[in-house]
Amino acid sequence: MNALVRAAYPWVKTPIIVCAPMLRISLAPLAVAVSRAGGMGFLAGGFDQSDMEKNFRQARELIHQSSPPIPQKEGVLPVGIGFLNYGVKLEMALSVVKRYIPAAVWLYAPHKLSELETWAEQIRDVTDGKTKIWIQIGTAAEALEVARLCQPDMIVIQGSDSGGHGLKQSASVIVNIPEVGDSLAAAGFSHIPLIAAGGIAEGRGLAAALALGANGIVMGTRFLAAKEAQIAKGYQDDVLRAKDGGTSTARTETYDIVRGTTDWPPEYDARGIINATYFDDKRGMPIEENKKLYQEALKKGDEGWGPKGRITTYAGSAVGLVNEVLPAGEIVKKVAEDARKALERTSKVNFE
Amino acid sequence: MNALVRAAYPWVKTPIIVCAPMLRISLAPLAVAVSRAGGMGFLAGGFDQSDMEKNFRQARELIHQSSPPIPQKEGVLPVGIGFLNYGVKLEMALSVVKRYIPAAVWLYAPHKLSELETWAEQIRDVTDGKTKIWIQIGTAAEALEVARLCQPDMIVIQGSDSGGHGLKQSASVIVNIPEVGDSLAAAGFSHIPLIAAGGIAEGRGLAAALALGANGIVMGTRFLAAKEAQIAKGYQDDVLRAKDGGTSTARTETYDIVRGTTDWPPEYDARGIINATYFDDKRGMPIEENKKLYQEALKKGDEGWGPKGRITTYAGSAVGLVNEVLPAGEIVKKVAEDARKALERTSKVNFE
Repeated sequence: MNALVRAAYPWVKTPIIVCAPMLRISLAPLAVAVSRAGGMGFLAGGFDQSDMEKNFRQARELIHQSSPPIPQKEGVLPVGIGFLNYGVKLEMALSVVKRYIPAAVWLYAPHKLSELETWAEQIRDVTDGKTKIWIQIGTAAEALEVARLCQPDMIVIQGSDSGGHGLKQSASVIVNIPEVGDSLAAAGFSHIPLIAAGGIAEGRGLAAALALGANGIVMGTRFLAAKEAQIAKGYQDDVLRAKDGGTSTARTETYDIVRGTTDWPPEYDARGIINATYFDDKRGMPIEENKKLYQEALKKGDEGWGPKGRITTYAGSAVGLVNEVLPAGEIVKKVAEDARKALERTSKVNFE
Repeated sequence: MNALVRAAYPWVKTPIIVCAPMLRISLAPLAVAVSRAGGMGFLAGGFDQSDMEKNFRQARELIHQSSPPIPQKEGVLPVGIGFLNYGVKLEMALSVVKRYIPAAVWLYAPHKLSELETWAEQIRDVTDGKTKIWIQIGTAAEALEVARLCQPDMIVIQGSDSGGHGLKQSASVIVNIPEVGDSLAAAGFSHIPLIAAGGIAEGRGLAAALALGANGIVMGTRFLAAKEAQIAKGYQDDVLRAKDGGTSTARTETYDIVRGTTDWPPEYDARGIINATYFDDKRGMPIEENKKLYQEALKKGDEGWGPKGRITTYAGSAVGLVNEVLPAGEIVKKVAEDARKALERTSKVNFE
């Protein structure tokens, strides 16, 4: 695995630490900072070709300016791009991917998993296999299906603790990683590296993911408190404030409804920090009124966030482990170092 | 920690592997088999004094008959007992605990956490501190509260993947263990050992729990497929059948309602394998009709279980990792051995 990852992504230090492609947040400065530190940065694709091109151009520029230079593979951009498949046209994605040759394309949330077969095939085709195919799934059944259809280069396993969108029903990574690993191995796919997503925000989580059989981790919520994240201060402050994410965040469809982002496939909802929008909905406020109040909150700027605010604050249940804003590169290095220490500690556990 | 655990529970091999006190399932044969193998077995207290006494007497007998003998601490029974605090009277618990001096009492689900202060004090009082106080919680806030109130000898942290009853809202152990650990350490309680419960059914989960900072694990679902579990064949067969517990189980109040076990505090629901009771409720079947069908299913014996059956099949989302019935002692040994192997593997991970 290490050899495969090193060959495909020569700047990556293993175990691989990935910054999730968070819509409108994971732009070029964050993605490049993560890759520069030996992690794997992803641009959030979004739905608009001109935005994607702009983000890629900026990433290319930042990579070009990096000193020391980021170790690269000839003709491959050392960042990836994430697509929300339910909302992106293949032709548009292909035209952008062909032009910029990102190191990886991360596919997620198609209407049907079977759609991904064509995506994987054509992306490999237009990039001569230079762009690797990452697919994010949430169950062992989904993992098996995409392994058979697409032979992905990497499978990202999303657990129930993850922030933002995810399956309404899923286990956490403590279950999913071993079960997906066993299922794939039994079907002859043990060579596909696995990346754990959801609930991991620091080094002990990375160490645990490795013990479970993953080859690396994705973090989203942790990078919301990265200096380079494109994020409102009110949002970031609330991420730093929230503790005990099991109770201070919730999976719900309410945030999608008030925001009008209701085009996700029906098996998804999203986890966010609970706020007035959520409480009012639970108390029975008519959704039209909640929507109106949401629009009014948007005008308040940073004041619109917070436990009494209304603006959607997507975050995972690991939010309580995020306590300070740091440069993304320092986050990558600190998580790796803390994982190394955790594994040094566990290597001394006495099994008599 | 190892020294403390060894002194209190001399038969226990560290890291500690615990069998959950599962109501009407964790009786003397299972509890003693787990302790005999170097784990920590718990009797499920239930609500009736004569049952408790019967279980303790049987445990004492099985312990007495054990060959080789179970290493014991003078005058302390090498198994624990779990109480569901919302439904058990302190006086009754004290009278049984005083007579049998179990190694530990596991407190859980009081109407208010503050009730546990008296419980801890009086149990220590009637047993001269021989019976250790274990308390199960689900958030960092709860952990801090019980640490301050009760100075527990052990804190069990229950995550969202756990089977049977648990908090409606909580994170998985991948979040909870580090967050509880950090919160307790910041408040001066870093000496309290932590045990992870929920989502762990095999060695990689134990290894992960240790990496997260826990000192051991509880397993419930895994021991449903122990030879010594007091469990109907229909129930056990369904545990072996179910895969992908994130989608094949669900947290719900419906099972409690059809069974009439509605006296749990309102912040709890329970996770079970989804079956006809669950689907019919989701489709809008009136609850009285669902209850009636439940009663009819009870008469069918083993046929009443299964995906098309109706009898409640509590299980955690790790159910897909449970694939064979084994003697409880073999489960304990295999999980420890597999954890050791997982940590040997992670000790070789290259952090360049």
